[in-house]
Amino acid sequence: MPSFDLRLSTLRAAYRAKATTPAKLIGELREKAAALDAEFHLFIHLLSDAEIAPYLDALEGHSPDSLPLYGVPFAIKDNIDLAGIPTTAACPAFAYTPGESATLVAQLIALGAVPIGKANLDQFATGLNGTRSPYGKCRNSVHPDYPSGGSSAGSALAVALGVASFALGTDTAGSGRVPAALNNLVGLKATKGLLSTAGVVPACRTLDCVTYFTATAREASELLALTAKDDPRDAYSRANPQFNDASAFGKLPAFRFGVPSVLEFAGCAESPALFAQARAALEAAGGVAVEIDFAPFAEAARLLYEGPWVAERYSVAGELMQTNPDVVLPVIRDVLAKAPGTTAVDAFRAQYRLQALKKTCDAVLDRLDFVLTPSFPRPVTLDELARDPIGPNSLLGYYTNFMNLLDYAAVATPTAFMANGLPWGVTVFGRAFTDQYLLSAADTLQRAFALPVVGGGTLSGDASEGAARNDRVRFVVCGAHLDGLPLNGQLRARGARLVEATASAPRYRLHALPAGAGGVRRPGMERVARDGAAIAVEVWELPSAELGSFLSGIPAPLALGKVELADGSWETGFVCEGYGLEGATDITRFGGWRAWLAHREDEAR
Amino acid sequence: MPSFDLRLSTLRAAYRAKATTPAKLIGELREKAAALDAEFHLFIHLLSDAEIAPYLDALEGHSPDSLPLYGVPFAIKDNIDLAGIPTTAACPAFAYTPGESATLVAQLIALGAVPIGKANLDQFATGLNGTRSPYGKCRNSVHPDYPSGGSSAGSALAVALGVASFALGTDTAGSGRVPAALNNLVGLKATKGLLSTAGVVPACRTLDCVTYFTATAREASELLALTAKDDPRDAYSRANPQFNDASAFGKLPAFRFGVPSVLEFAGCAESPALFAQARAALEAAGGVAVEIDFAPFAEAARLLYEGPWVAERYSVAGELMQTNPDVVLPVIRDVLAKAPGTTAVDAFRAQYRLQALKKTCDAVLDRLDFVLTPSFPRPVTLDELARDPIGPNSLLGYYTNFMNLLDYAAVATPTAFMANGLPWGVTVFGRAFTDQYLLSAADTLQRAFALPVVGGGTLSGDASEGAARNDRVRFVVCGAHLDGLPLNGQLRARGARLVEATASAPRYRLHALPAGAGGVRRPGMERVARDGAAIAVEVWELPSAELGSFLSGIPAPLALGKVELADGSWETGFVCEGYGLEGATDITRFGGWRAWLAHREDEAR
Repeated sequence: MPSFDLRLSTLRAAYRAKATTPAKLIGELREKAAALDAEFHLFIHLLSDAEIAPYLDALEGHSPDSLPLYGVPFAIKDNIDLAGIPTTAACPAFAYTPGESATLVAQLIALGAVPIGKANLDQFATGLNGTRSPYGKCRNSVHPDYPSGGSSAGSALAVALGVASFALGTDTAGSGRVPAALNNLVGLKATKGLLSTAGVVPACRTLDCVTYFTATAREASELLALTAKDDPRDAYSRANPQFNDASAFGKLPAFRFGVPSVLEFAGCAESPALFAQARAALEAAGGVAVEIDFAPFAEAARLLYEGPWVAERYSVAGELMQTNPDVVLPVIRDVLAKAPGTTAVDAFRAQYRLQALKKTCDAVLDRLDFVLTPSFPRPVTLDELARDPIGPNSLLGYYTNFMNLLDYAAVATPTAFMANGLPWGVTVFGRAFTDQYLLSAADTLQRAFALPVVGGGTLSGDASEGAARNDRVRFVVCGAHLDGLPLNGQLRARGARLVEATASAPRYRLHALPAGAGGVRRPGMERVARDGAAIAVEVWELPSAELGSFLSGIPAPLALGKVELADGSWETGFVCEGYGLEGATDITRFGGWRAWLAHREDEAR
Repeated sequence: MPSFDLRLSTLRAAYRAKATTPAKLIGELREKAAALDAEFHLFIHLLSDAEIAPYLDALEGHSPDSLPLYGVPFAIKDNIDLAGIPTTAACPAFAYTPGESATLVAQLIALGAVPIGKANLDQFATGLNGTRSPYGKCRNSVHPDYPSGGSSAGSALAVALGVASFALGTDTAGSGRVPAALNNLVGLKATKGLLSTAGVVPACRTLDCVTYFTATAREASELLALTAKDDPRDAYSRANPQFNDASAFGKLPAFRFGVPSVLEFAGCAESPALFAQARAALEAAGGVAVEIDFAPFAEAARLLYEGPWVAERYSVAGELMQTNPDVVLPVIRDVLAKAPGTTAVDAFRAQYRLQALKKTCDAVLDRLDFVLTPSFPRPVTLDELARDPIGPNSLLGYYTNFMNLLDYAAVATPTAFMANGLPWGVTVFGRAFTDQYLLSAADTLQRAFALPVVGGGTLSGDASEGAARNDRVRFVVCGAHLDGLPLNGQLRARGARLVEATASAPRYRLHALPAGAGGVRRPGMERVARDGAAIAVEVWELPSAELGSFLSGIPAPLALGKVELADGSWETGFVCEGYGLEGATDITRFGGWRAWLAHREDEAR
């Protein structure tokens, strides 16, 4: 096997075929990493043979069949604890040696993954470019004039340069997405709280996320499904029981996505066309683009460094900065300088403003499946950063800084290479807990462009067989819940919207049930082997979380099952138990409930 | 009609019977209020005839049938805007005259309610006793040696003394509950965001709630159902589409409630027995009491005044306090004194601590339907408050201060009178959005004790016919989702717990369906008119919000409908469409899926 293709499925196949062993592979990768380090400064600490040995020993007697991440090498951003190895946060004076690993690191090791090193970062994870480190500047994996992007600079390089299958980053302002975009990687900034941050040096404790860098969206989906769990060690941890498993990852059904009506490219000549291509690819995949006002998102983004959240960063590094200012990089000192003067009143007032912006932004997202943006307005060069360490860094965060403040999930995915060879990408973001759905969108994009993935090869063709699931469900109604009929309000009150009026597959008979409680007459759909007809139905969409209370109110013999539509798809909708059809009136010949109601009114005249 | 019984149903009946008119009634109430004011100081501003006239005029041509709150008099705490009338927050120097009413006030007026006056309060709603006002101290409605409780002191008095059917209070620390407990009223502190706070003077903007004071829980249920709506004017507004309507209010099904294992009564001789009676009443109503550790709740409570949330209060009154300290009461100045020195770092660190406590407290609530506490450890006297304006006030908040910090809903409800005649009560609290369910619990308590309600009469007998609904649903499984069987993990992953193993009503036949996708065999329950049998089933309980995604994954011909259990109750559970039973094997004689599986294994041996 080429040691560079380290994708989970490739490695798994290689181990099964005995083409290599974890010890052999990781030995090779360590050599490669050591050779790369002089130029790229990707590791603050590359684990020694002795330090790796216990993890390899623990794989004895296992295989990819017993451990899903058997022998998978991964890099750890050096603000995340690995037991027994110093955590520096790229500040030697801050370093400490943790007795236990971060929860997520421990989870991955328990699944068979093998840590290879602690990766370089912008000091205290404060930065988006990868040059703010006393352990060396991280240049881009492809182009020497550009940075790797940060703050998870070394983590991205570890995957992009082929010394780890995946890497852990962190992302408060965009640190898990900007380096992905600049290095042809997928960067998953999952919903806050899904991946434990216990054992992570905080940047902004209320906002921090741990992230995955992978070659492909499908790998990120698999890693997320394996490790997103509620962690008692992390007060900000949250489970997503509904849409977390890999079965929510798949082919996108018809969808609607937002695109900023005004885009910021900071004068970049190439980015507008590259973004237009990404938008077109989603439209070709069945998406309907909806232009949205990006101003409230951009305003929220500015709160992150212009507002009191800087005080959260200061609460971590402030003491050290006061007692020994020289051990903190000047640019970090500049960023944190105003924090000590920020009052609690300032903090609360900024939270009020954020809440107002969130209400506006949530309303924008409410009618969309996700939003598509560039991952950055334009790349910036190492020269630019050397001349001005702050301005170009801020530019990189234009499309990323608001994400955690607004509690959205986001995936950065590669869609192009610029003329100079530099990777370029877009970000899809959406409501909290739609991570697997967003990864499905990223996968769609990655496949649409059939780009070379790191390590070789391209992705193309369809995603997995299943349909991607997000937090909205389609729901088929055929009777009193139809638009304008007596029970329709039960749907509208739950935020439902009408998707389409259509018909069932021609395999049903429609019955008028005897009047039930409240005197409202309701129909029963009966699926039949012969003499079936197409019945007029409506497809509504509503938040999945609202469906449970709706179901509770459905009286027997009606039930919610699966209804086959005219186009052959099956959607959740009203069905009827067989016993309930006894004594009912067969009204199939009317073709639908509305037609029968109209007929009855005519008769009553 | 006795002008004192102003309950919604009583008034509605009186208007329908033409026993009075809104103009006549409200004229009488204004006279009564003016007479009471000298002793109780309940109104800062009682509306004049001219000020009330437009609201009465708007009722022309209407009746209780066209307007649900037709001619219902209500009082408004004077930190809530009524268009054209000064809002003082009990600080004359702070007063302003709003051009428009608070959203909630406007909603109520549009429903036919008539504002009667702006009620007295602890200045800036900072206090729990009702004596911190330059407009006079509010004594208790029953006992002259005690305060009304605050900060919504005048609002509670308006209802308790029979000059309004209901009143609006606000509640940040307990201001909508403590005065209810002290005046034989129900105090509904609904989930944060359900009732709009637009047009309310903030105390702590991130925590503030508007509350209802009513004679009975049912009235609060009705008012909440009428007015809880998402408000674009209020960034903190949140809708509750699932359990907001009055149909969620009803008789409590079997339930589990928490009780602090260690109770604080501050030496009160009577309170322990009164609390024990309330607990016993709930047990008699079918509840199972579970002792819980109250320490994390109490610690969260202390954060409210010992932590940075005081800075939120300061952000409202601080400027005035700096420029003109004398216009703010000394006790309020004392409470707010440390706010200016609180930094943003302090604010964030306190939020981290709160988040940790919330995780602990949420886990306690997770397996309960609600928690029962006293509403206060013991009442305090006006003398005590005169001697020490802060200590006894803090004592009143022991069981209330944590509620909004932890995002819980709460209802204070009367359950007793002390030997000296002073009203005494308990609070039920629970997860956000379970308001109607909590009101049902309050109603259960109120009826259990058959206390005289304000205005005369008693409540007794059963609550409404329907069953109260909370955010957990019972769910009947009969096949592969049974405990330990292959698909049971789908339930457990969603936080489900096994309630009981039982049987269906003897009206079903059980069929083994042909193997479906994944090779898992599954049964179909068929309800039949004759030859039915009792089938072994399990009842699980899971969060309603998780049921939608579960339903999405159910393949035809299975569906979720209603299953009749052995005890005659109907619960949501698995049913099967008729067509799916063709070709299936009737296994009714085995009595259940497990027995059939065991039989097959035996045969396979």
